[in-house]
Amino acid sequence: MPELRKDPVLGRWIIIAKERRKRPTDFIVEKSEVRGGFCPLCPGNEQFTPSEVMAIRGGVESTTNAPDWQVRVVPNKYPALIIEGDLGKEAEGLYDRMNGIGAHEVIIECPGHHDILWRLPTQHIVLTLKVFRDRLIDLQRDPRFRYVMVFKNSGKAAGASLEHSHSQLIALPVVPRMIVSELEGALSYFRYKDRCLFCDIIRQEMQQEIRIVCQNDHFVAISPFAPRTPFEMWVLPKAHASGFCTTPDTALPALAEIIAESLLRLDACIPGVPYNFVLHTRPLHAGSLEHYHWHFEIVPKLTSIAGFEWGSGFYINPMPPEEAAHFLREADPSAGGSGEEIVTGG
Amino acid sequence: MPELRKDPVLGRWIIIAKERRKRPTDFIVEKSEVRGGFCPLCPGNEQFTPSEVMAIRGGVESTTNAPDWQVRVVPNKYPALIIEGDLGKEAEGLYDRMNGIGAHEVIIECPGHHDILWRLPTQHIVLTLKVFRDRLIDLQRDPRFRYVMVFKNSGKAAGASLEHSHSQLIALPVVPRMIVSELEGALSYFRYKDRCLFCDIIRQEMQQEIRIVCQNDHFVAISPFAPRTPFEMWVLPKAHASGFCTTPDTALPALAEIIAESLLRLDACIPGVPYNFVLHTRPLHAGSLEHYHWHFEIVPKLTSIAGFEWGSGFYINPMPPEEAAHFLREADPSAGGSGEEIVTGG
Repeated sequence: MPELRKDPVLGRWIIIAKERRKRPTDFIVEKSEVRGGFCPLCPGNEQFTPSEVMAIRGGVESTTNAPDWQVRVVPNKYPALIIEGDLGKEAEGLYDRMNGIGAHEVIIECPGHHDILWRLPTQHIVLTLKVFRDRLIDLQRDPRFRYVMVFKNSGKAAGASLEHSHSQLIALPVVPRMIVSELEGALSYFRYKDRCLFCDIIRQEMQQEIRIVCQNDHFVAISPFAPRTPFEMWVLPKAHASGFCTTPDTALPALAEIIAESLLRLDACIPGVPYNFVLHTRPLHAGSLEHYHWHFEIVPKLTSIAGFEWGSGFYINPMPPEEAAHFLREADPSAGGSGEEIVTGG
Repeated sequence: MPELRKDPVLGRWIIIAKERRKRPTDFIVEKSEVRGGFCPLCPGNEQFTPSEVMAIRGGVESTTNAPDWQVRVVPNKYPALIIEGDLGKEAEGLYDRMNGIGAHEVIIECPGHHDILWRLPTQHIVLTLKVFRDRLIDLQRDPRFRYVMVFKNSGKAAGASLEHSHSQLIALPVVPRMIVSELEGALSYFRYKDRCLFCDIIRQEMQQEIRIVCQNDHFVAISPFAPRTPFEMWVLPKAHASGFCTTPDTALPALAEIIAESLLRLDACIPGVPYNFVLHTRPLHAGSLEHYHWHFEIVPKLTSIAGFEWGSGFYINPMPPEEAAHFLREADPSAGGSGEEIVTGG
């Protein structure tokens, strides 16, 4: 019997179609490669990107555009939004519009063209997470911006257009609909219970243990109760916090480890799977919120064979999250992954 | 300068990235074919589908499973939901779930394997629309169901798994999140203005004329103000009505004509473009609503090159709807389309 499950945050119902049940090896991963050849993100090619916003060299910040960086942030060469100008909010009859003001940056996560961030030393992943956090804190100073989306598209099917490991951020003068809906759902729960919905989810998951992928002292990775796609994962801090930017340095190694472990377990289940990795955090000027809880969402792209969305925003998922979590726990995160040799360094 | 636009119904902001502007010929359509070979939907193969729910033979209803049908409705052989059983609503701690009870039917729109519904005589399209309406009315009698989604996936990239022209319907014991959000947005507008938001949209569009694709006495097809993808279209009745199932027979030829014209104009712009076609109508037992207005949404699938969604539900669209409407108006709806020979009959 298929099952209908409701996402407790968004109120979105999804179908768990157990009759269409699949094993990890049943999923076919689209092997379309992203553009190869000349790479503007490689060390030595700094002149082919816009001038850097920030970079980490020898563990500290600098902006010299020299090739000796560990993590480098540059404006997107083809930005979806532009940084200069005012918002020019206006009506067109009953419609609302404003200028496309915002920041659109590329975070080049490591110098090695073939490096996979999650296979690098924890220390390097921590540098990247620090850069995410520092860019958020910096962009928060601009009163025009309401939200910063930090996300990573890995694999062409997930939207990546360059092979070199990178994330992106977009600072927006509006809050994206998905976050507005999460805030509304979480607030409505908080008003009823006087507790954070996400804290309650974490408490229940740690009691039940059936949807936990892995955990450490500070963080837990779960297969959410009503996942959109097979192997969807959420990584949440165990202690309540609404904004990622308040994460202390001391917690970053644990965060780096759990994200890496989750993604390596996913890759061991479905080698080379494309995915989207998205930070969900509070709006920039919201202050600390009792009802919201920042987290990362990892959504594998397996659309053609399984887990497709109907035009109306209705998802059918052939993989119960309890089984997905089981497969992920059983997987060996130290397995090679993607069948590719790991090349380190520039 | 890119532009941010707010969908007046959902409150969803999208980016119109004019700098990434494209002409229709710039869009590459994925030519991956859906499964060919033996077709269980063709006349003569009736025994390879579950027994028919209804069919039109010689213009009237029958359920003989004989091959002389014009439109035929059968249960989906691999249903996402099943029809027998009770809802068994229950909690799992703070989570909510219920049995996957529902109907999942396939509407085989015409006997000819290579026929394209929108190129058939208006009279035949009217038969198909009547079948949509009659199935809605019939399923409304089941007190377990709250909503019926009627949709068509055309082309493999849009989710079609069979070549033979067909639509699907899913009767659900819940209202999909997207429709809940539309109802909330429309109700909030109604409370403020005491007018239907969609009626106001139609009024403004007919005054401005810049986003109208085509119209007739009863219906109008527009490029919406804040489209998710290039060439997104909405087809709306000019007179207020919240439920598709109340559409009178006298209006169906005009509806058939405007949907066909819209889709043929789209196909003339981007031959063979895959698309999702979704009916948005009021929930089954909501009664007649002053604040909601049924309509069809047509969303072309052009993800890889343009119009992509970030993980967070944020869309970037390189085609301003005013330009899309212009291209669609200029296109010749009688052009061959898809470069394929049109085969009629069985």
